[in-house]
Amino acid sequence: MSDDPAIELAGSVRRLIDATIRTLADDATIRAVQSQIDSLTAQLTVETIPGAVGVHHVAGFSRVAGNVIIGERNAIAPPLTMHHRDDGGVATDFALGVAYEGPPGHVHGGVCAMILDHVLGAAVHQPGRPAVTGTLTLRYRRPTPLDAALRAEARIRETQGSKTFVEGFITHGGEVTVEADGIFLFPRR
Amino acid sequence: MSDDPAIELAGSVRRLIDATIRTLADDATIRAVQSQIDSLTAQLTVETIPGAVGVHHVAGFSRVAGNVIIGERNAIAPPLTMHHRDDGGVATDFALGVAYEGPPGHVHGGVCAMILDHVLGAAVHQPGRPAVTGTLTLRYRRPTPLDAALRAEARIRETQGSKTFVEGFITHGGEVTVEADGIFLFPRR
Repeated sequence: MSDDPAIELAGSVRRLIDATIRTLADDATIRAVQSQIDSLTAQLTVETIPGAVGVHHVAGFSRVAGNVIIGERNAIAPPLTMHHRDDGGVATDFALGVAYEGPPGHVHGGVCAMILDHVLGAAVHQPGRPAVTGTLTLRYRRPTPLDAALRAEARIRETQGSKTFVEGFITHGGEVTVEADGIFLFPRR
Repeated sequence: MSDDPAIELAGSVRRLIDATIRTLADDATIRAVQSQIDSLTAQLTVETIPGAVGVHHVAGFSRVAGNVIIGERNAIAPPLTMHHRDDGGVATDFALGVAYEGPPGHVHGGVCAMILDHVLGAAVHQPGRPAVTGTLTLRYRRPTPLDAALRAEARIRETQGSKTFVEGFITHGGEVTVEADGIFLFPRR
């Protein structure tokens, strides 16, 4: 998977997303760039996976390559890299640029929710047996800054029958910005 | 704002994000496309806003042009368009493509959380006086499909002192996929 050149392409597209937001180029330059982007997209789409990567699996391709949080082909994804700790918990270190803005200069609260949903779920997933979110509660303690070193962690607190209770948080500089509690379920196959 | 050519550019970048995920082009084509994307990004970044759009305000530019949910310059944003109803509630109709994938073929639960955080907040915001999320609880009722007509709605249920209690949901085909309850606060200025 690591030699898939679309992973590097996604990195370039992330920089283009940022540039599109912040550019002060003149209108003619922006229009010319757009026209060339459209031509490049046409080159990429001569042959494509017919839909979502998770559904239309292609040999040699990660099933999560298109995932909005961890997908290496997905320029929307930061992408997060999850680390599974010896104690069963998970953690990930990341930073979010201006494309994740909500309140001026800060990460959108919804983006924090999105990331915590994924990180709490990752603490529950078992190989070949993904969990789904039942309930998720978020408590916002302080603003989460853009372009700053952030960390998200989660661990299982308790299991009761089909329900797994998970807790986690995002920190910046050792201070919690958002806390989360979730109940995750394993869908019947 | 509507004559900002970067808005159209962001639309093209959204199609490029999708193409980057789904392309089956050969490695040489993908590498050549990446090289050209990097050149186009360099053209856009000769002069830029020095940071987040909400902080470094530029005349003629919407302050929310870079917002991750509604920002028209932000290719990560669907972008949502909020409609304020006569009864004080808000609603938005949208669809999410493969770039928002979580479980195979379905919208990531975290993306639903992100959207509901924004839509519930939009029901509380007053002109020039944005609200921030205090607590948000999400209940996942059924999977949310990709590439399908979705609707999100929210309304204020009650106000108690500085706290505003809000409820909302996402529906597909008239059925609720995710419900949300939130407590929003107006930060002191």
